[in-house]
Amino acid sequence: MATLTCTASDLAPLLTTATTALNATALSEFLCGRFNTISTKFADTTYAVDNTYLLFSAYLVFAMQLDFAMLCAGSVRAKNTMNIMLTNDLDAAAGALSYYLFGFAFAFGAPSNAFIGRHFFGLRDFPSVSGGDYSFFLCQWAFAIAAAGITSGSIAERTQFVAYLIYSSFLTGFVYPVVSHWFWSADGWASPTRSDNLLFGSGSIDFAGSGVVHMVGGIAGLWGAVIEGPRIGRFDRTGRSVALRGHSASLVVLGTFLLWFGWYGFNPGSFLTILKSYGDGGTYYGQWSAIGRTAVATTLAGCTAALTTLFGKRLLVGHWNVLDVCNGLLGGFAAITSGCSVVEPWAAIVCGFVAAWVLIGCNKVAEKLKYDDPLEAAQLHGGCGAWGLIFTGLFATEKYVNEVYSGRSGRPYGLFMGGGGRLLAAQIVQILVVAGWVSATMGPLFYGLHKLKLLRISREDETQGMDMTRHGGFAYVYHDEDDPSIKPEFMMRRVEPVNDASPA
Amino acid sequence: MATLTCTASDLAPLLTTATTALNATALSEFLCGRFNTISTKFADTTYAVDNTYLLFSAYLVFAMQLDFAMLCAGSVRAKNTMNIMLTNDLDAAAGALSYYLFGFAFAFGAPSNAFIGRHFFGLRDFPSVSGGDYSFFLCQWAFAIAAAGITSGSIAERTQFVAYLIYSSFLTGFVYPVVSHWFWSADGWASPTRSDNLLFGSGSIDFAGSGVVHMVGGIAGLWGAVIEGPRIGRFDRTGRSVALRGHSASLVVLGTFLLWFGWYGFNPGSFLTILKSYGDGGTYYGQWSAIGRTAVATTLAGCTAALTTLFGKRLLVGHWNVLDVCNGLLGGFAAITSGCSVVEPWAAIVCGFVAAWVLIGCNKVAEKLKYDDPLEAAQLHGGCGAWGLIFTGLFATEKYVNEVYSGRSGRPYGLFMGGGGRLLAAQIVQILVVAGWVSATMGPLFYGLHKLKLLRISREDETQGMDMTRHGGFAYVYHDEDDPSIKPEFMMRRVEPVNDASPA
Amino acid sequence: MATLTCTASDLAPLLTTATTALNATALSEFLCGRFNTISTKFADTTYAVDNTYLLFSAYLVFAMQLDFAMLCAGSVRAKNTMNIMLTNDLDAAAGALSYYLFGFAFAFGAPSNAFIGRHFFGLRDFPSVSGGDYSFFLCQWAFAIAAAGITSGSIAERTQFVAYLIYSSFLTGFVYPVVSHWFWSADGWASPTRSDNLLFGSGSIDFAGSGVVHMVGGIAGLWGAVIEGPRIGRFDRTGRSVALRGHSASLVVLGTFLLWFGWYGFNPGSFLTILKSYGDGGTYYGQWSAIGRTAVATTLAGCTAALTTLFGKRLLVGHWNVLDVCNGLLGGFAAITSGCSVVEPWAAIVCGFVAAWVLIGCNKVAEKLKYDDPLEAAQLHGGCGAWGLIFTGLFATEKYVNEVYSGRSGRPYGLFMGGGGRLLAAQIVQILVVAGWVSATMGPLFYGLHKLKLLRISREDETQGMDMTRHGGFAYVYHDEDDPSIKPEFMMRRVEPVNDASPA
Repeated sequence: MATLTCTASDLAPLLTTATTALNATALSEFLCGRFNTISTKFADTTYAVDNTYLLFSAYLVFAMQLDFAMLCAGSVRAKNTMNIMLTNDLDAAAGALSYYLFGFAFAFGAPSNAFIGRHFFGLRDFPSVSGGDYSFFLCQWAFAIAAAGITSGSIAERTQFVAYLIYSSFLTGFVYPVVSHWFWSADGWASPTRSDNLLFGSGSIDFAGSGVVHMVGGIAGLWGAVIEGPRIGRFDRTGRSVALRGHSASLVVLGTFLLWFGWYGFNPGSFLTILKSYGDGGTYYGQWSAIGRTAVATTLAGCTAALTTLFGKRLLVGHWNVLDVCNGLLGGFAAITSGCSVVEPWAAIVCGFVAAWVLIGCNKVAEKLKYDDPLEAAQLHGGCGAWGLIFTGLFATEKYVNEVYSGRSGRPYGLFMGGGGRLLAAQIVQILVVAGWVSATMGPLFYGLHKLKLLRISREDETQGMDMTRHGGFAYVYHDEDDPSIKPEFMMRRVEPVNDASPA
Repeated sequence: MATLTCTASDLAPLLTTATTALNATALSEFLCGRFNTISTKFADTTYAVDNTYLLFSAYLVFAMQLDFAMLCAGSVRAKNTMNIMLTNDLDAAAGALSYYLFGFAFAFGAPSNAFIGRHFFGLRDFPSVSGGDYSFFLCQWAFAIAAAGITSGSIAERTQFVAYLIYSSFLTGFVYPVVSHWFWSADGWASPTRSDNLLFGSGSIDFAGSGVVHMVGGIAGLWGAVIEGPRIGRFDRTGRSVALRGHSASLVVLGTFLLWFGWYGFNPGSFLTILKSYGDGGTYYGQWSAIGRTAVATTLAGCTAALTTLFGKRLLVGHWNVLDVCNGLLGGFAAITSGCSVVEPWAAIVCGFVAAWVLIGCNKVAEKLKYDDPLEAAQLHGGCGAWGLIFTGLFATEKYVNEVYSGRSGRPYGLFMGGGGRLLAAQIVQILVVAGWVSATMGPLFYGLHKLKLLRISREDETQGMDMTRHGGFAYVYHDEDDPSIKPEFMMRRVEPVNDASPA
Repeated sequence: MATLTCTASDLAPLLTTATTALNATALSEFLCGRFNTISTKFADTTYAVDNTYLLFSAYLVFAMQLDFAMLCAGSVRAKNTMNIMLTNDLDAAAGALSYYLFGFAFAFGAPSNAFIGRHFFGLRDFPSVSGGDYSFFLCQWAFAIAAAGITSGSIAERTQFVAYLIYSSFLTGFVYPVVSHWFWSADGWASPTRSDNLLFGSGSIDFAGSGVVHMVGGIAGLWGAVIEGPRIGRFDRTGRSVALRGHSASLVVLGTFLLWFGWYGFNPGSFLTILKSYGDGGTYYGQWSAIGRTAVATTLAGCTAALTTLFGKRLLVGHWNVLDVCNGLLGGFAAITSGCSVVEPWAAIVCGFVAAWVLIGCNKVAEKLKYDDPLEAAQLHGGCGAWGLIFTGLFATEKYVNEVYSGRSGRPYGLFMGGGGRLLAAQIVQILVVAGWVSATMGPLFYGLHKLKLLRISREDETQGMDMTRHGGFAYVYHDEDDPSIKPEFMMRRVEPVNDASPA
């Protein structure tokens, strides 16, 4: 690369006018060469800074898969722990391959039409100028597996492993990518970043995916859980709801806190770049501020929802329940995910407050309808996700909408902020379309699996627990028979899976 | 934004002297325009890099709240696991709201007086040129909740939930912010960054908060634990100490390691910015080196303290104890937190070595005095934190003090490094003032709660465990009655909280 | 620092030609001063960005130590949980001191000879222009303790604590640093970054350490486990293999997922810098793209290995086993670690597929030979690590090798990519040399400890579990005697270590 430094003795000869004319050509080349080098170095710096930002954000989003695994493990009964952890593991693994081969191409392949992408299968011809870099792929993959992870919670403790493999690949490889294409790709029909013909002159604003990720996962889970029916014992003979408590609150809290941590990748990370000035630049206020504000709004929404749930459930049920607080927190996060970048921090408090009641209400309805969702995933991600989209249509501010979705003046913004109803209309369209699309694809899939007897496990497997019957043994062995000082009644069963002579 | 690139044909006409005079005005505008653009771009780049650094550091500091939750959960008996996890959860949630509404304004609201800040309530008029950006708020909030988390350890297993809600909001919203204003805000009376009238010409150096965070949390916990008295069974009838072992060493180790991970946000992150040259710049040595050195010093102090504790306790007690090693490690971290940025790595080893013995000594004294602190929080954070402040007064080097607290020549530094006793005097003042302020505010609060019978739980609740009586059930259910192959004696109790018909 | 901004009125006087001649000297100084300032600012920016990138990568690599601790804890029986967690804790702590005092100097002390480094003992004269900054030290320390952590898995559940202290310091302080000097230091005899006399004109490409870290740890573990012999009960009287199941699959999955998370520091972080253009710069493609590609390749290799193991074991054994999937995943990661930066993403899929079968095969062989390795560490890190080195010799592409190891044209690359056999030859030399060196140093060490009766614990300790006999008590206490409602048979034993009057 050309050098930038120089000394006066390099430059002075070009300027000397006593004996020779000023050497206009040489001077011009000298100066322009340096300015061009500077410009190149700024471009490189920007790529490096933005990729650093995006990569670490993507790592945080990936970590959410771990967090789901712990949350799910703690929320199911001990006898199904191996099963649920395996499904979460596979989400990430199978999702990586199917998203690499197909999913990313359907979602962000460019150029494309308004419905589906058609390039970058197997990351061919990638990266490119317009298509983003590997860090973008990594981030989008982590989002995709999050959606499938949500669904796995709804159908936990009663689903055949093979059904899991099938729906998970289909969701990650096709259903989810198409939705993300519609709302996030520059070509998508409802995208706010289209160059023209925006939906209601606005496009739908689903910044980090209350709809694209959370509703998709939640509604897919809803259909799975409805078609399978509730777990044995979830509702007693008289129809009364019976809590089937998860086996470890510690794992639930661990998973929830880690999800909170990961959400700082999910929401602020959705900016994709950080080195971007607003306006003329050079001031303390730029995209980095918007990113920080997004992190603050996310925090406030989750915290408000957690506190609201704490006191709400205390009034309704009579004790302080840490598991309710965890779910409330996550409901607040799922709701703010859509509008986190375009609302004021105080509005995030409103968002979280309502999200807590949406979750409580959805749970009441679910109980009435004898709907069994071990992780409350449909209620939490579906219900609070839908509220999040509406919230954005009400509270998005003019200033932030124009900064975050720049390059087009006069965008509609939130109804309560004086921006009219067009953004809200676009948000409602998104809710309907996401619900419709996921129902139309995942509903028949689950129904087909059900008819083929591939969906629900046998009554015997369910009673015994899948770990013993399908996964080679129970997840925990706190004592073993090697210790003679321990009397038989202290032992958990020693597990020796048939045909398995290898070390576990 | 203006363009930087140019070609010779743009520039040459401005210079041609054959037919026209050199166009001085146009040329000046051309060149200055480019230089100004470059300057703007550097400003933007610096904001983006520094905010990236600070945001990810803040995320790590936030993660420490999770780590406290796991550490606390593992350190208490299984019957109080739900309770302690809930209090940690609430620390973060209630802390976010109170710090957003009041705390941050008291701490860093500018302009302000030397005692307390008065701006930015609810982040109004924020961000601003002088007040920092949202990333700074996020980081400071994470520090604030850490202090409250420390206190919760001291009073674990015997405190009413409502008392927790009250002291936690008071600590995060008022007591802690005022201390951080004194020592960290540019207006604080003991701050080393004041423009004039520095305490002993130096101000107190508490870089990442051995005093501001750890002593505050530890001393608050001390008063709570003293006023409540020890847990039932902690000292037997003859007054002999009885270990009430925590229920899961795995959770303790998990929490400890995660705290170590988070401390890399806590200490190096306290620099707030990374793109800052020392001296004239352009060399490999700058603030980025000081940040790396801080991380190394932190590591060495913790590791030395862990090893010292390991061998020390082996000699004193006779076995190798992983839980002691965990506490020793954390004691080393709490101590180095004050001086991490201004000491040589070898001095950090001294710091950690002494910290281990300070912790062992404090624990001996606590036992003698029949003081019961389930997490050893007062000893660890209070005792080692105070040692850390003294350590800084002894070992801070001239070079590093002047680099990290730049802009004022001739600052005092460590007594043992030849810098005289003024810094040490300021450090001792900080210890006294922090201890006094926290005692004067939190002592009466805990005493008042005690008198109002809002502090300690009933004897019955304590024996049964709060999870059963207050939080809707036990944290763990390893077997359930659905499995007919499991004989009754293998079961833990099936828990069905009264009035709770909803899924947990 | 000099200012960059200017106004036309500053510059115009230097150019005015009406009354005075153009002031060549002043103008030259003006312009060059600004260009030099710009150059300085770019240097500072680059240091800040690269250090930010490296520091956070180092934190992730450090986190792997936690992850090992959880993975190991879950994989051993409950009675040895405290023991294994303590050894992992100490790895990090003792490793920090020995690597600070000796290890780093042996590995990267410059100038040095081809065999061993000789500077920077105790970080003296560090940082320096050529030696890297503290962030580099931190990252290398985290790598070093990872190697020792691997070994601890192989010899788990039967090794004396003092043996652990001895081998761990020796490995981290000498054996490992020497290997890393050979392959990673610019002076190492087999390094691809030597200035001349490259091994086979190429040097061995072990980008993030399939050989340097994983094989070293695995082969050290192999010797330890072989000399100690299998755990009691691991093979029954007839010689049949008996699975000694770990006590918590949840901890195994937690550890595995966290290792995955940490691997994003390990592999992409090994670039050390991110702000580096390829070619002339200014385009979207640079080192940041290579880093992203490395993360993607790592992901795909691990995921493919996990899926291959899942289906492979399903066919061979008959159930879906989450623990097998975890080990398969880690085997894929260990294999791709060598070539992650120089292969196409599709090749990573090949790498992972083969790695899964290498692991399955090694486990079969281990069983035949009655080799007992509780974590499968020798098979996984040794076997898959060796495969990774060969894989790089087969699939490294010309373009990526020349970008990542730039500054020398005509480097050999992968055999299957048309690059001839010289790189493969260098890779095979590395396998042989690493295996030989570690065997020649660690083998005698373990044998000596064995002869001195310092290696294996007593039969009694092994049956009882080391936690009770050596570490002051069992890791878990789910119930305690304070609760009168719990009948005796529900209690785990109350543990009161002798001589221990202090709180645990």
